[in-house]
Amino acid sequence: MIDWYIIDLIGTCVFAISGALSALNKKMYHDLFGIFFVGFLTAVGGGTLRDILIGAHPIAWIRDPNYLLVIIGSVSVAVLGRKWWLGTLRRPLLVFDTLGIGLYTILGMQKALNFDVNNWAAMVLGLISAIFGGVIRDTLVNDLPLIFDRQIYATACLAGALLYLIGRSVALDPMVNFTISASLITLIRLLAIRNGWALPRIK
Amino acid sequence: MIDWYIIDLIGTCVFAISGALSALNKKMYHDLFGIFFVGFLTAVGGGTLRDILIGAHPIAWIRDPNYLLVIIGSVSVAVLGRKWWLGTLRRPLLVFDTLGIGLYTILGMQKALNFDVNNWAAMVLGLISAIFGGVIRDTLVNDLPLIFDRQIYATACLAGALLYLIGRSVALDPMVNFTISASLITLIRLLAIRNGWALPRIK
Amino acid sequence: MIDWYIIDLIGTCVFAISGALSALNKKMYHDLFGIFFVGFLTAVGGGTLRDILIGAHPIAWIRDPNYLLVIIGSVSVAVLGRKWWLGTLRRPLLVFDTLGIGLYTILGMQKALNFDVNNWAAMVLGLISAIFGGVIRDTLVNDLPLIFDRQIYATACLAGALLYLIGRSVALDPMVNFTISASLITLIRLLAIRNGWALPRIK
Repeated sequence: MIDWYIIDLIGTCVFAISGALSALNKKMYHDLFGIFFVGFLTAVGGGTLRDILIGAHPIAWIRDPNYLLVIIGSVSVAVLGRKWWLGTLRRPLLVFDTLGIGLYTILGMQKALNFDVNNWAAMVLGLISAIFGGVIRDTLVNDLPLIFDRQIYATACLAGALLYLIGRSVALDPMVNFTISASLITLIRLLAIRNGWALPRIK
Repeated sequence: MIDWYIIDLIGTCVFAISGALSALNKKMYHDLFGIFFVGFLTAVGGGTLRDILIGAHPIAWIRDPNYLLVIIGSVSVAVLGRKWWLGTLRRPLLVFDTLGIGLYTILGMQKALNFDVNNWAAMVLGLISAIFGGVIRDTLVNDLPLIFDRQIYATACLAGALLYLIGRSVALDPMVNFTISASLITLIRLLAIRNGWALPRIK
Repeated sequence: MIDWYIIDLIGTCVFAISGALSALNKKMYHDLFGIFFVGFLTAVGGGTLRDILIGAHPIAWIRDPNYLLVIIGSVSVAVLGRKWWLGTLRRPLLVFDTLGIGLYTILGMQKALNFDVNNWAAMVLGLISAIFGGVIRDTLVNDLPLIFDRQIYATACLAGALLYLIGRSVALDPMVNFTISASLITLIRLLAIRNGWALPRIK
C-alpha cells in the first residue's frame, strides 16, 4: 500500500530542489535567503493555492513542520551539491519534475473532491496543484513559465485528470485509478519532451 | 425581475471573451491551452479574489459547473470567430467590458455586504470584483493594466459604489439602487473614453 | 501597557506612506488612484496574505473601517507634502520602515500562533506579515524587491522571530519577549544598512 503522506513529502522535496536549482542557475538570487525563498514557493505554491481556493484550513505546511524541514533539507542539498546537480543531473531532475506533476495532479484532485467541488473544477484544481509552484519558480527567475511553452504540459495533466474522473465514475479501485492516471500524465509528458509534441499553433 | 445568476454568467462570458481576444491579439499565447488559461483567469479572477478575502466558500466556479462551461464555450467562440472579432468587433467588446464593470462592481458589493464588512471595504471589494480579472489579463499579455491608464476607470467604479451605499443607507429599493449605480459606472466610463477624461496628473 | 491596536494602525500608516512615496518617486503612477492603490497594497498586503493563509476571517481592514481611513489619511499626507518628504525625509522614512518590520514580524507571529500553526510556519508567517507589503510595492514600481537585495533584511526578521520563539518556550513575559525580539530585528537591520552587512554570495 502506498503512503500518500510520504508521496507528498517526496513531491515537496523534488519541487524544492527544482526551485533552488533554477535560482542558482539564473544567478538572480545570490544569497541563501533568495534561494530558499524560490525553493519554498516552488514546493508549496500549488498546494497552497488549491487549499486557499477550496478553503481547506489548516494548510499542510502550516500545520505540519515536516514540510518546511524537508524544504530546508532539500534546498541545502541543492546548494551544497550545486556543481554536481547543474553539471550532470539536469536530465534526472526533468524526470523527477515529470513524475511530480503526475503525482500532484491526481493527489490534488483527490483532496479537492473531498470538498464541495464540481468535476470540471476538480480538474482545474488538480492542474493548479501540479503546476502553480513551477509557474511561480519560472516567473521569479524571469523564464517564460513552462506551461506556456508550446510543448504538451498542462494538457498532459488534464488528460490524466479526465481519465481519473472516468475511472472514478465507474467505481474503479482508487489505488488502481490513481496509478493509471498519474502514469498517463508522466508518460504523455515524457513522450512530448522526446518527440517535441505540441498543441496546434493558432494563427 | 432580474435574475442575478444569469447576469453573473453573462459577465463571465464577456470577460472570458475579452481575455481570449487579448491573448489572440498579442500572439503571446499560441496554443489553445494558453488562450483558455487567460480567458479563465480574466473571467473568474475578480470574484475569486473577493471571495477569498471575505472567506466566502465555496467559490462560485468551484461549486457550480456552469461557470466553467460558459468559459469553455465563450473562449471557443472567440477562437473560432477570431478574424471577425479582431476585425470589426473591438468597439462592441469595449462596450461589453464597460457594461461588465458596472454590473460586477455592484454585484460584488452586494455579496460582500452579506459578510462582516465595513462600508469602505465593501467599496474596495466591489472594485476588486470588477477590475482584478482585467488586471490579470493585462499583466499576462504584458500590457499596462487599464486601471493605471490615466483615463477614468477605477474612479468610475468607486463613484457608482459610493452612490449604491448612499442609496442603501436611505433604504432605496435594492433593484432601483442597483440599476442606477451600475448605470452610473457604465455612463461615466463611456463618457471618459469618448472625452478622454482623466484624473489630474500629480507632478 | 502597549496597545497592540494602536501599534498596528501606526504600522499601517508608515507602510501606506512608504508605498505612496515609492509611487510618487517612480512617476509610474501619475494620478491619485494609482498612488492610493500602491499605498493601500503596501499597507495591507502582508497582513492580508497571512490571514488568508491561516484562514483568519474577517481580515482586519475588511471588518474595521479605521484601517482604510488611516490609509486614506496617510496617502493624502504623503501626496500633499510630497516635495518635503522626497527632499529631506527619506532617511526618517527608512528608519520608520525598519521599525515597522520589527513590530510586524512579531505581531504577525503572535497572531499566527493563535491558530493551528507549527513553529517553523509561525516564523514564515511573521516574515510574510512584515515584508510582503514591501514586495508588492517594489514589484509595482519595478524595483528589485528589497528582500532580494543582498543586504541583511529577511534574515533580520527571522533572527528576531527565532528569539521570540525561544523566549516563548522558556515562558518569558510576553511584553518583554515582544520588546526584545522586535528591537533585535530593528537593530540588526539598522546595523546592516550602516555597515553594508550581507549574506555570503553563492558562486
